[in-house]
Amino acid sequence: MATIHDVARRANVSVATVSRYINQNGYVGKKSKEAIERAIKELNFVPNNVARTLSTKKSNLIGLIIPDIKNPFFPELARAVEDTAYRFGYTVILCNSDEDPLKEKHYLKVLTQEYVAGIIITSTDEGISRETDIPIVALDRAPKTDIPSVTTNNKLGAELAGRFMLECGASELLILKGPNQLTSSEERLEGFLKAVEGKNIKIHVVDSPYELHDAENITYEFLQKHPSVDGIFGSSDVSAIGALKACEKLGKKVPDELQIIGFDGIQLGNYTTPSLTTVAQKIYQLGETATELLINEIEGKSLEEKNILINPELVVRETTRKEFKQ
Amino acid sequence: MATIHDVARRANVSVATVSRYINQNGYVGKKSKEAIERAIKELNFVPNNVARTLSTKKSNLIGLIIPDIKNPFFPELARAVEDTAYRFGYTVILCNSDEDPLKEKHYLKVLTQEYVAGIIITSTDEGISRETDIPIVALDRAPKTDIPSVTTNNKLGAELAGRFMLECGASELLILKGPNQLTSSEERLEGFLKAVEGKNIKIHVVDSPYELHDAENITYEFLQKHPSVDGIFGSSDVSAIGALKACEKLGKKVPDELQIIGFDGIQLGNYTTPSLTTVAQKIYQLGETATELLINEIEGKSLEEKNILINPELVVRETTRKEFKQ
Repeated sequence: MATIHDVARRANVSVATVSRYINQNGYVGKKSKEAIERAIKELNFVPNNVARTLSTKKSNLIGLIIPDIKNPFFPELARAVEDTAYRFGYTVILCNSDEDPLKEKHYLKVLTQEYVAGIIITSTDEGISRETDIPIVALDRAPKTDIPSVTTNNKLGAELAGRFMLECGASELLILKGPNQLTSSEERLEGFLKAVEGKNIKIHVVDSPYELHDAENITYEFLQKHPSVDGIFGSSDVSAIGALKACEKLGKKVPDELQIIGFDGIQLGNYTTPSLTTVAQKIYQLGETATELLINEIEGKSLEEKNILINPELVVRETTRKEFKQ
Repeated sequence: MATIHDVARRANVSVATVSRYINQNGYVGKKSKEAIERAIKELNFVPNNVARTLSTKKSNLIGLIIPDIKNPFFPELARAVEDTAYRFGYTVILCNSDEDPLKEKHYLKVLTQEYVAGIIITSTDEGISRETDIPIVALDRAPKTDIPSVTTNNKLGAELAGRFMLECGASELLILKGPNQLTSSEERLEGFLKAVEGKNIKIHVVDSPYELHDAENITYEFLQKHPSVDGIFGSSDVSAIGALKACEKLGKKVPDELQIIGFDGIQLGNYTTPSLTTVAQKIYQLGETATELLINEIEGKSLEEKNILINPELVVRETTRKEFKQ
């Protein structure tokens, strides 16, 4: 592969001149410019990004750290980030933290060392702070620090779910609460409870990871002990779909005997039988907005709004018994 | 952030000496070594990978190019690659080609420019060739070139599906064939036909992308015109799940009136109702093997086997009517 030295030799100019030409950061005479362009063409020279990164300390890479790519919410989110980044000429490095704070720290370090232009993170750590001057945006989960963020209005969404569950006539509810360390799962619990508490409704709250198989097992065991439960709120769609599977195994008819509402709005919810009623986050808009916010930061523009909250909407399908009227 | 210059100044040695120490490529005296170590500690200096990459022309990044992260097969595959890479100290850059050859080329170029240590690719181009000396491994789709590859034995898998479909008593079959440019979708068609042709069975072959919504629409329209179809082979699980949704919309009972077999073995197949009978690829093993192969290449080890074929297995669930006997 041709190097910058080969180009300089062929064009009969100094390496510094070629470097100025490539990085567009200084004067290059017309004759030299033409000679360099000819040499680049003849040698099929590709200026490499690593060298450019080192001289400008800026790359066109965006790091995206998500907790679990196997949860279908995150591929949909990652696609939105990647599409938007691509549109602006950036390439995305994707890293899975696996909800493991140590792994997350490792990736933050790796990304920083690779001089990414910026980082988008769905963090397992709500105390995550800005350790370098690399632009960073929190996505889907808002940290309790000053990092800009783009998140769903979880409380409002869960409140919608709670109110609709009551309208549908459920009277003993199981809430599959998400992971304890996540603000979003606290907010969803809070919003749902706000809607259903004090209404003479029996309420059970059980912890359940955002994972199909776990949610299925937890619901299966719980429903065996509490067969009178007639409504389930899953704090994520995968939790709700796991619960739906458990009902099927127990021969419990959904929605006739038991109704289910999820939270996320992943495509998969359309393809279960019955299809899933859910609080749909605007997944694409979340990813797109976060990426635009990050790119504004990278490009040194001032941010009009630093913490963007996007309202979700209730999507009524077949796991509930009633039509929804706005 | 402290630089190599700060370290050199504090340790009272030259930058070149610090560089030799960091890159372990030359003599550094005992006293200098101690002074450098002290300075690194005191300044909290992190040697950056970009500088190291430039001097050694090797990074610890692996590029992974996949066609569509929203198809649930690929997140499962990506996780396997990422887990394995992590185990060996590599970090994965994920890129979505969106089945677009131009986008794929763009990412190949970007990854090459970033000096990744190696690339794993599920290519849309079966003619993909080695354009640089960066190690590369084809995953899931074998190119017709000399690039090492790790793929499923698609023909064998589809043959298993075809034979089982006959045993289950289907007599008019719809095959949802995958994208035309993919060898794997040709192989799956070929294997399935090998099992069912000449058996007095009516066979329809229709093109269908590996996408839930498209497969649903294509199947819906086809079944309206050909209501006597009683068996569907989906060349991917998402195709099969889309078909299942179409049957549900048409009020066609699965498996009583129509049986379905998919191909892939994604987790989601467990969560449809009825759950999906499928040819399960060993997804984790595919990703793991490809990553190990690539790392062997990166580390200059000779490859015992360059084209690794992994046998899939039939997983019988509820979209077919019969027990499976090996």
